[in-house]
Amino acid sequence: MSILVLGTVALDTVKTPYGRRTKMLGGSAVHFSMAARLFSDVHLVAGVGKDFPRHHVDFLKQKGIVLTSLIRSEGKTFQWIGQYQGDLNTALTISTELGVLITFKPRISAEQRDIKNIFLANIDPELQECLLAHMHSPRLVALDSMNYWINNKPRQLRRLLKKVDIYVANDQEARVLSGEDNLIRAAKYLRSCGPKMILIKKGEHGVLFYTDRFIVSLPAYPTDKVIDPTGAGDTFAGGFMGYLTKTGRVNAASVKKALVYGTIAASFNVEGFGMEKTSGLTLEALNRRLNKFRKAVVF
Amino acid sequence: MSILVLGTVALDTVKTPYGRRTKMLGGSAVHFSMAARLFSDVHLVAGVGKDFPRHHVDFLKQKGIVLTSLIRSEGKTFQWIGQYQGDLNTALTISTELGVLITFKPRISAEQRDIKNIFLANIDPELQECLLAHMHSPRLVALDSMNYWINNKPRQLRRLLKKVDIYVANDQEARVLSGEDNLIRAAKYLRSCGPKMILIKKGEHGVLFYTDRFIVSLPAYPTDKVIDPTGAGDTFAGGFMGYLTKTGRVNAASVKKALVYGTIAASFNVEGFGMEKTSGLTLEALNRRLNKFRKAVVF
Repeated sequence: MSILVLGTVALDTVKTPYGRRTKMLGGSAVHFSMAARLFSDVHLVAGVGKDFPRHHVDFLKQKGIVLTSLIRSEGKTFQWIGQYQGDLNTALTISTELGVLITFKPRISAEQRDIKNIFLANIDPELQECLLAHMHSPRLVALDSMNYWINNKPRQLRRLLKKVDIYVANDQEARVLSGEDNLIRAAKYLRSCGPKMILIKKGEHGVLFYTDRFIVSLPAYPTDKVIDPTGAGDTFAGGFMGYLTKTGRVNAASVKKALVYGTIAASFNVEGFGMEKTSGLTLEALNRRLNKFRKAVVF
Repeated sequence: MSILVLGTVALDTVKTPYGRRTKMLGGSAVHFSMAARLFSDVHLVAGVGKDFPRHHVDFLKQKGIVLTSLIRSEGKTFQWIGQYQGDLNTALTISTELGVLITFKPRISAEQRDIKNIFLANIDPELQECLLAHMHSPRLVALDSMNYWINNKPRQLRRLLKKVDIYVANDQEARVLSGEDNLIRAAKYLRSCGPKMILIKKGEHGVLFYTDRFIVSLPAYPTDKVIDPTGAGDTFAGGFMGYLTKTGRVNAASVKKALVYGTIAASFNVEGFGMEKTSGLTLEALNRRLNKFRKAVVF
């Protein structure tokens, strides 16, 4: 089974208490792909500039990511410069340089229009809606967004919410968009905006999944090696959506397993800068850590 | 099996977005007892003033709490006035009136000295150490403390840490005492201070339990009815220690089950003011909710 992800491909410069890395390969679509590829064929839809290094393209191809719809155009690749302090739970953005993202419009091939599983990673909601309009008959569509769009394009975001099956948000975003402090109440509100399923990512505190029929709550994988959390949320989504795409079923058991795979994939992501730990990740390593997680959580 | 708890008996005045209650029965030892009584005989060690209402004494007796060492003396009962806002995760103390606590010294009966399971709830660490010195051969001793003592009696607290089996702290306290932001590293540091077991309570985010041999991480019970979280941590400790006292074994399986009972007991506590929900709590109700929790967590 295949999954199509629309999002960003970026060059990230990150400083954390454990060091600094310059212009690493990053972006929501790339972090998502690194986890989703362990379960499904991943088709990446994004734009990069003429400056995007060839070896990054080779790396993604080597990982099996389908790059038919990675559009290279005049201009610079999206750059993010950020840093983390203290408990590393919140990123401080130093600067963003949109580059080619200013004029980017997603284009996909005729075959890609038939892909059934879609992840709309964080990017302008108008581009997310534009991509969705290209799809023939999507079966499972998940949407991620960020505070910037919640604040700057709320109308477009709310329109889009009516068209997706799963809304993925972090706890702060869920609180802002719903006006509710309690996360269950926030999830219920977001449910009333359209999506049947609400997935709230709580960083080091794990994840809360809400539907009318069941709730799942999981802690994060306990680790003391948090080096760089950039992309953890997208890696989580990649494991989650990748597994659901593979199983082809959406029910309490498969959603729970998918949430666990997302949790474990994200735990590898935070243990290194950029894709240091997820680029070499295998399903075997994922399953080994899943068994450790089971010991810490299951009663 | 019996458990002895040293702590406070208080009259709490609390304001939350859901209302206000004046001079409710409260205090660390009382909240602990409300949960622990479901599993074990509870002996309460605390001091109250002449103003302490008779009906509160009757209520505690009716709940089966042994009050031999509840000392009534000249002066006023400890009073706390506090309020909660927003996500109700942090209490804002408006005022505390120590009353009889200023001169309180724990005294226990000859028979009580043989009790094997001890919970030293939040109170001056010198009183905690004084009580511990009275015990003949305790088998399992857990210690709770609060920021006030971490800041004001750090030397006494650190001495006491060497004498207990379990240290119970909330996430903020664990971070302050250890100087570590990451909670696993904080737990490892606290472990190096003496206690073999470290229990970090994270409020709405659940609990982390650390020993050299195993780690347990559990989310909180998902509830959207958080009315008044006062005493949730002590209720948690009551369920946890009560169950361990009942089983008489401390291993990975019993600790995990005890943490789950603590989690469920605390979830009832927050759903009402003071002891509104825990005073009528039964083991049957606890087990019913435990099964719902299992559905949300176990994979």
